Amino acid sequence: MTLRIGFLGYGMMARAHAHALNRLPLFFPETPETERTIVAGRDPDGVADAAERLGFRRWTTHWRDVVQAVDVLYVLTPPTAHREPTVAALESGVHVLCEKPLAVSVRDADRMAEAAADSDAVAGCGFNYRFLPAVQLLERLVQEGELGTIRHVRGQFLQNWQAEPSDPWTWRNDADVAGAGRVADAGSHSIDLARWLAGPIESVSGQLTTTVDERPVAGTDERRTVTTDDAYSALVRFSSGARGVFDGSRVATGHTNTNTIEVVGSKGTARFHCERLNELEVMREGDRGFQSISVTDPDDPYVDRWWPPGHGLGWEHSVVHENYEFLGSIRDDEPFDPGFETGLAVARVVDAIRRSDETGRRISIR
Amino acid sequence: MTLRIGFLGYGMMARAHAHALNRLPLFFPETPETERTIVAGRDPDGVADAAERLGFRRWTTHWRDVVQAVDVLYVLTPPTAHREPTVAALESGVHVLCEKPLAVSVRDADRMAEAAADSDAVAGCGFNYRFLPAVQLLERLVQEGELGTIRHVRGQFLQNWQAEPSDPWTWRNDADVAGAGRVADAGSHSIDLARWLAGPIESVSGQLTTTVDERPVAGTDERRTVTTDDAYSALVRFSSGARGVFDGSRVATGHTNTNTIEVVGSKGTARFHCERLNELEVMREGDRGFQSISVTDPDDPYVDRWWPPGHGLGWEHSVVHENYEFLGSIRDDEPFDPGFETGLAVARVVDAIRRSDETGRRISIR
Amino acid sequence: MTLRIGFLGYGMMARAHAHALNRLPLFFPETPETERTIVAGRDPDGVADAAERLGFRRWTTHWRDVVQAVDVLYVLTPPTAHREPTVAALESGVHVLCEKPLAVSVRDADRMAEAAADSDAVAGCGFNYRFLPAVQLLERLVQEGELGTIRHVRGQFLQNWQAEPSDPWTWRNDADVAGAGRVADAGSHSIDLARWLAGPIESVSGQLTTTVDERPVAGTDERRTVTTDDAYSALVRFSSGARGVFDGSRVATGHTNTNTIEVVGSKGTARFHCERLNELEVMREGDRGFQSISVTDPDDPYVDRWWPPGHGLGWEHSVVHENYEFLGSIRDDEPFDPGFETGLAVARVVDAIRRSDETGRRISIR
Amino acid sequence: MTLRIGFLGYGMMARAHAHALNRLPLFFPETPETERTIVAGRDPDGVADAAERLGFRRWTTHWRDVVQAVDVLYVLTPPTAHREPTVAALESGVHVLCEKPLAVSVRDADRMAEAAADSDAVAGCGFNYRFLPAVQLLERLVQEGELGTIRHVRGQFLQNWQAEPSDPWTWRNDADVAGAGRVADAGSHSIDLARWLAGPIESVSGQLTTTVDERPVAGTDERRTVTTDDAYSALVRFSSGARGVFDGSRVATGHTNTNTIEVVGSKGTARFHCERLNELEVMREGDRGFQSISVTDPDDPYVDRWWPPGHGLGWEHSVVHENYEFLGSIRDDEPFDPGFETGLAVARVVDAIRRSDETGRRISIR
Repeated sequence: MTLRIGFLGYGMMARAHAHALNRLPLFFPETPETERTIVAGRDPDGVADAAERLGFRRWTTHWRDVVQAVDVLYVLTPPTAHREPTVAALESGVHVLCEKPLAVSVRDADRMAEAAADSDAVAGCGFNYRFLPAVQLLERLVQEGELGTIRHVRGQFLQNWQAEPSDPWTWRNDADVAGAGRVADAGSHSIDLARWLAGPIESVSGQLTTTVDERPVAGTDERRTVTTDDAYSALVRFSSGARGVFDGSRVATGHTNTNTIEVVGSKGTARFHCERLNELEVMREGDRGFQSISVTDPDDPYVDRWWPPGHGLGWEHSVVHENYEFLGSIRDDEPFDPGFETGLAVARVVDAIRRSDETGRRISIR
Repeated sequence: MTLRIGFLGYGMMARAHAHALNRLPLFFPETPETERTIVAGRDPDGVADAAERLGFRRWTTHWRDVVQAVDVLYVLTPPTAHREPTVAALESGVHVLCEKPLAVSVRDADRMAEAAADSDAVAGCGFNYRFLPAVQLLERLVQEGELGTIRHVRGQFLQNWQAEPSDPWTWRNDADVAGAGRVADAGSHSIDLARWLAGPIESVSGQLTTTVDERPVAGTDERRTVTTDDAYSALVRFSSGARGVFDGSRVATGHTNTNTIEVVGSKGTARFHCERLNELEVMREGDRGFQSISVTDPDDPYVDRWWPPGHGLGWEHSVVHENYEFLGSIRDDEPFDPGFETGLAVARVVDAIRRSDETGRRISIR
Repeated sequence: MTLRIGFLGYGMMARAHAHALNRLPLFFPETPETERTIVAGRDPDGVADAAERLGFRRWTTHWRDVVQAVDVLYVLTPPTAHREPTVAALESGVHVLCEKPLAVSVRDADRMAEAAADSDAVAGCGFNYRFLPAVQLLERLVQEGELGTIRHVRGQFLQNWQAEPSDPWTWRNDADVAGAGRVADAGSHSIDLARWLAGPIESVSGQLTTTVDERPVAGTDERRTVTTDDAYSALVRFSSGARGVFDGSRVATGHTNTNTIEVVGSKGTARFHCERLNELEVMREGDRGFQSISVTDPDDPYVDRWWPPGHGLGWEHSVVHENYEFLGSIRDDEPFDPGFETGLAVARVVDAIRRSDETGRRISIR
Repeated sequence: MTLRIGFLGYGMMARAHAHALNRLPLFFPETPETERTIVAGRDPDGVADAAERLGFRRWTTHWRDVVQAVDVLYVLTPPTAHREPTVAALESGVHVLCEKPLAVSVRDADRMAEAAADSDAVAGCGFNYRFLPAVQLLERLVQEGELGTIRHVRGQFLQNWQAEPSDPWTWRNDADVAGAGRVADAGSHSIDLARWLAGPIESVSGQLTTTVDERPVAGTDERRTVTTDDAYSALVRFSSGARGVFDGSRVATGHTNTNTIEVVGSKGTARFHCERLNELEVMREGDRGFQSISVTDPDDPYVDRWWPPGHGLGWEHSVVHENYEFLGSIRDDEPFDPGFETGLAVARVVDAIRRSDETGRRISIR
């Protein structure tokens, strides 16, 4: 079986997925073989160049060309362009890996989840952080009851790439294209990890801020209005009774990539920090302090495929492992987790945070 | 001038203040001289023993005896017992240092602040963390504009002293005595620091939890119901437009004393962690990462009074410095900051967090 | 130009180099094209399997077959087997990348360095840690004078992979095959970095230890004598007048991969820790503490080829960058640094440490 | 029993000991009562002022006046002035606490140890770092076998108080007064801790450096030659077979007070860092990483006398505990550890490091 792969989009995540496909044969040889068949993008020159760089045989400017030509579709465009091709692909039996956030709105996400439910194809949502060894170990600890009953979850995703008012406008500042801002972009990662570790979220209170109202458009004299939030925070109640606090920003001076998740349970606590992604800090019964664990032992998730203890992995490995699992699901004809139901559930939480910000009320999530 | 000092209460904070008074002559010789005149407590044996240990000449079981005999009253009892003696003292022109939270209710706090406003005596509220060198340096950075316009404030105060359901009941679990639980106890510290650094708070959304419903009474077979929260979190809007996130717990497994405050500004970010209380992490314009500053230089606040660089201070020094400043305010006939207006403002925020938890609504603070 | 590549050896470093060759086209497209022509190993089944996995067209059990068939030879065998094929290759004009330590003895290293000097081919020694972005940034700081005159260098390389007496015997425990133990294996990395950053070493005092005298041979009942050290330490004088301290161990309980280097200069200090390989701690004039720098900015060495800020790299990227530079040297017909002169100089220091341990005397290095 | 106390010297350590005496009644009420009887110093104005500040009844410029008037003598002068009054005191049955290093030379230290052995008085050497809770816990772990057989000890004591050539000359730069430089001053602390934890030292190799040759004399135009080392390092062999590495500096840019000790055993590893003096990092059997322990539990050494968990102590508490133990030894008529035998043994190691530096040879310690 050689799976024909098509990409929509050729930005940074396209590079990350192409790279992942490059690496699977040596490190995960049991992965199905793939062929990079066709890539689509709006700009003919850009996409032609990307096809060459990323190893695609052909390129197009029409997404339908891709859907028709492949077994697996990677949807790597801004959220506003996710729904249509994804639904078309799933209806044609084409497998889909769609980047997060799943859609620009709950309505779109709902439609996509419905299409996934009705299709025999595998549908995955790109919450890649799950696939880091340290995050996998964290989930394993929770599953095995090492932390006891979960009491609190804390998720931060602080960055500084728009900390300066002079940092240029991007499509992520446009509500029509991105849906929401930081709450969607980074918040969706935090919410996915929290739900994965602590179960469904029942209600939220949230607040959003737009710290910088307009930004220059790179290479022009234009200044464009920012219509999304650039920072958010939220209080969360899980169905289990646990509580959570979330916090995200693009304007957090000093924070290059503070993507952290902490799970406090009745028996122990564990926390992950993405800037030290080979480590997990864990405190269990009998411990007197947090153990700083180097998650690089052969017994740790995925690690036996790579290097000896202490020879850490990088961010990109999350995407390699995600591709390994996703393509394995296709081979085995099994659902992939996180799927579109997860993408939809996260979209509902994101939407509830926005509505809470507008109304000043705690919002229940159905 | 020798100031006659009286204490109400003889618990841990009484020990901390007695110790502070012991140390002032050697390290802060310009502080007014003091005499420990009288200490009050409910239990005659206990208070008699404490008087001996803490260096008081006399003891009593009636707070009025203290108010009548002293120049300065230290109110070190549970919050429910703060209002009456404090108001009486201020009305008699006796200076008052009252531990936090200022009162068991906004109503009481309001009455106390009124008494303070009407009195010529100095009134102080015991937010001692302000007086650590690293926290003082943080405030100095904010004042000098080194961090620019404040965007976010994050305050945590996580402890584990009631993490186990078997941890015994204390008066802090009794709403009638303590007013509220974690939100009052630890929350008031975080809120005070946040207001001090970022200005008044305009509205809050909050959630409270009681993780463990009843607890054993030490030395008995009794189990008593917990009527206060043991964990809280809150979203905050400052009048300036800045936002904040707060988080406190007594049931946070693994956290001995995670009392942290982080201030993110347009030009830089700084954070303090109480378990490493001689350090301040600061990132300023031109820096590429957080500097981990050892706040032990002679130029740092209070440090020239103590030891050479790198010879760190302890928690207790916060109380020494607080006493130095408070007694200095009395000597100079100047108001002490934090005073009762601050104590009242913090009480209002604590109360708003509770009401938000009950109503599910964002609460404005007048 | 397509360079024909041959490997001697198919262990962990062969996997790391094959992987590096896989990744160059996407991330460093200007690298010369390569073809994996032939791989040699002693065991026919093992090498046949490795050829398949690592992407080689052919395999052999005779190193001469490789030397005759390729443009570039990678010498990835234990040190005792380095000299003969390396010299033969260089004499035939075949480029050589030889893993460290360069040779089993100073005599062999000398012969190899002579062959390199006499050849037009490019010769490189595999000190891959130099090619991590944070280490490159450290060297850049030194070169630009940001640290002033170097005063001290501290290098540690502590691991625990033989901390237990039950950890199995490997060829690294055999003096005949490995030359020396920890001092050669890890020490050579520390010494290379120190020399690169602080210049030639003039004299050393050293001590070696063999903590565990014999070890079980995996899969057998045999116990074999350990004839190399498993821990070493050394005091070093650089020609510049700077001093150094080195410390390495395979039996350091708790240390997964504590490979650190610290450079203290008259104007500043910087340090690198391999378990947090995306960070560099730097203190410069005007700083009040060490800045913890995330070396993931586009301006940082090699980083623009990879991912956005804060999306860290892994250990393997050191080998990717090393291959990029080495193959670039071949393309540009320029010497590669670190070359065989460096490998020889490091071998001399390693040897002097051993002799100092035996004689109890400080040993001058000519 | 009220012990009459006399101090020789009134510098920083005099302040630390006076402060300790102030604090004992409240926190260690079982300590014998003391009276600060007399203090001696060279400068009449200085010593008169100090007597007032430090709470002494009288002052003198003749050390003999002190010896004759007291039960306990604190020798807090530069090392060159230790021997004569110490021996006189011990011969008169006066107890002596002498600051480290014990003496300016092995010969003096020998004479002092002899006097201590011949006297019924208690003799203590001021290695105060032993008395920090985290260091005590480290020793307890070693004693209880939690770390197994000790393999390596690493001690650093890096400071920057003379990092700049413009930092002024002090008596610590004068070999006649101080004996040696960094190796005596800081080295003696590291060596004491290492011997305490891992037993006697059998041989050393050492190197000393004087980075800055002359320094300005504060308040004058004079420049004075530096006749002591300002940095040292040493390799050590313990009688047990363990090895050690030591490293100290006054010119280590960026290091305010990097006083660390690490003990690597066959079963575990523990390390202490003085800038985070309430923490101990420990890795034991079954752990996957270092636990960062907050040594602030009531069960931890001395902690029950102070504050609740997480309310850390400062450097000065080491001196409080030292005084508590020393005065307790006098009360109980028992020897104090560390005594003069320890001071002598450390002096021998310091001297051997110097001789090794001069001769280039490993020096055996008898």
